[in-house]
Amino acid sequence: MTQDKSGEDFSFSLNQTDGAARTGVVHTPRGDIKTPAFMPVGTAGTVKAMFTDHVKQTGAEILLGNTYHLMLRPTAERVAAFGGLHKFMKWDGPILTDSGGFQVMSLSKLRKLTEEGVSFQSHIDGSRHMLTPERSIEVQCLLGSDIQMQLDECPAMPIAHKDAKASMELSVRWARRSKQAFDNFSKPGQALFGIVQGANYEDLRRASLDALVEIGFHGYSVGGLAVGEGREEMFRVLEFTTPPMVREKPRYLMGVGKPADIVGAVARGIDMFDCVLPSRSGRHGQAWTASGPLNIKNAKFIDDHTPLDEHSTCPASRDYSKGYLNHLFRAGEYLGPMLLTWHNIHYYQTLMADMREAIAHGRFDAFVADFKASTGETLV
Amino acid sequence: MTQDKSGEDFSFSLNQTDGAARTGVVHTPRGDIKTPAFMPVGTAGTVKAMFTDHVKQTGAEILLGNTYHLMLRPTAERVAAFGGLHKFMKWDGPILTDSGGFQVMSLSKLRKLTEEGVSFQSHIDGSRHMLTPERSIEVQCLLGSDIQMQLDECPAMPIAHKDAKASMELSVRWARRSKQAFDNFSKPGQALFGIVQGANYEDLRRASLDALVEIGFHGYSVGGLAVGEGREEMFRVLEFTTPPMVREKPRYLMGVGKPADIVGAVARGIDMFDCVLPSRSGRHGQAWTASGPLNIKNAKFIDDHTPLDEHSTCPASRDYSKGYLNHLFRAGEYLGPMLLTWHNIHYYQTLMADMREAIAHGRFDAFVADFKASTGETLV
Repeated sequence: MTQDKSGEDFSFSLNQTDGAARTGVVHTPRGDIKTPAFMPVGTAGTVKAMFTDHVKQTGAEILLGNTYHLMLRPTAERVAAFGGLHKFMKWDGPILTDSGGFQVMSLSKLRKLTEEGVSFQSHIDGSRHMLTPERSIEVQCLLGSDIQMQLDECPAMPIAHKDAKASMELSVRWARRSKQAFDNFSKPGQALFGIVQGANYEDLRRASLDALVEIGFHGYSVGGLAVGEGREEMFRVLEFTTPPMVREKPRYLMGVGKPADIVGAVARGIDMFDCVLPSRSGRHGQAWTASGPLNIKNAKFIDDHTPLDEHSTCPASRDYSKGYLNHLFRAGEYLGPMLLTWHNIHYYQTLMADMREAIAHGRFDAFVADFKASTGETLV
Repeated sequence: MTQDKSGEDFSFSLNQTDGAARTGVVHTPRGDIKTPAFMPVGTAGTVKAMFTDHVKQTGAEILLGNTYHLMLRPTAERVAAFGGLHKFMKWDGPILTDSGGFQVMSLSKLRKLTEEGVSFQSHIDGSRHMLTPERSIEVQCLLGSDIQMQLDECPAMPIAHKDAKASMELSVRWARRSKQAFDNFSKPGQALFGIVQGANYEDLRRASLDALVEIGFHGYSVGGLAVGEGREEMFRVLEFTTPPMVREKPRYLMGVGKPADIVGAVARGIDMFDCVLPSRSGRHGQAWTASGPLNIKNAKFIDDHTPLDEHSTCPASRDYSKGYLNHLFRAGEYLGPMLLTWHNIHYYQTLMADMREAIAHGRFDAFVADFKASTGETLV
């Protein structure tokens, strides 16, 4: 636990388990987060196409912000001058920020990785930057995020064992520097998570975890998955990665995923998730529903007078016909992405709430069976 | 008055006048509209980038829908099958629809105007259509609009007197056919407005009005203005057009305008307005405020911690800093247009409410003086 000045802590309560699945609560000074939890992604200080009060209405208790985007525009120093990211974007609940490393490698230009960190050019204006473990934590502290992530290297798969080992060991050294920087810069109540790497090698995942636990973090993430390895391989890696993870700390699977990915990862002991999928796919006309995804732009919905979910408590799901949503997308109207993002985020939050309830009542197996039957997913 | 089956009427109560300025209430079965009124434009079944409940929160009591857009996509017959435009777009207040004629002339391809009507090709899919006075009313009745407009011809200015006269006379013949169609197709409680044409010729405006009054409408519009003639010329035309207009019927100036245009037209006896400006300019970063318009993308707002209007009741105006809005526009985020449209529509509605109160209290001259002083507008 991290004691803050007002006596409020960052901590995790594990309430029930059902097989490997877990339900609990992450406590932060800005509010509690019931787990398993899904964190909508607010990349550049906004969950795209949504008002934060609607995000909150869906049941979301924590957002994710992207360090890479925010450090480049409007800059972390500017966000700090505005009173921090929460005030800047009008979200008073907890915020988790990533380290920026993943986006540097996927978005920036002329990047160069050394022991010191990653130097790169902004994809926005070409300006030059250096992201080190220390700078990443400094930026996350300027943003004022409640849960911060160590800088790590996230290699693509497949990767040879010796390369995966070298990369993982660099991430461990960066974890140690991140922790030192966090101890220097952070405020009471903030938390830092370490990231377990090691590709799809059990010995490397275990060595990574052991080294991180020795350093000591408030929570542990599983990184380096959902990078194209496929669901079956991801689940195989989780099956040997999560069991040795500290039982009393939250476990966060980064960047995952589709509903079936999330259900399967909860079944394998994961507590926290984030993914751009519900918002990104919503902007492109894909709606996630209890019976699987559908493309609202499909001609078969033109004359469909039914809403996406007539029993939902979400206005976007309940109060607009599929025919109207189809019209909005065909006409290129803002309201289409606005409504479908809202619907998707609500669907994800409902899925998490249903899983929490199933785990609490010892009927998670039945939940998974129902999920497979209603969505047609076979691998969960 | 138009008696409807439930005993509810379309009618207009003129409550107070102050000079030429008027305040009153348009009564419709779907709700009252306090005048002077500004109608946000919901072209294709949505006020772009806004939820209808937020539109209502701004104080808007009536929306405008565009017949041309809706008859092409999703089609008026389809909207009717969905239970009408109100249900389709989730707006339970009154809706005014235009005739479609103005958009046919400005947006469609291969259009041809005859005594019968206008034949044209859709700008969306090239399909061929014929818009006649009868078809326009049929479409507006299928949409279920509460206030409908006659089909008219809206010539560009400058225009020679003999051409303006011929065009105006065609509009009068179309007015008669529109009225006949309305009597055949409409439901109790719906209303039809005639449109005064005649360019900038006093004798033609008067002849147009006299002919329309003889046919008999629920309200009278001033058409053919705000088509590039400039504010001074528009006000000059209004000064001879509005005085002879029926005192006991609502007067609607179509497609106007900037705040100073509206204030000046209210001073010259107009009751109702519509314009895409607050929503369109909002999508492009222009905010209308009590001290005039500003471009939120301007670099000077990057570090501005103040909201657009800290005293506003509108969340978009009050709860977000100009610096955050600037960031949203620079980052190309949906939330920028969403917030600025909301702010602008709210500003327009506040302007109308302030004018209604000033007229009711006999201090409209003082209102205009304040408006000129705070906005720097000289011609109002």
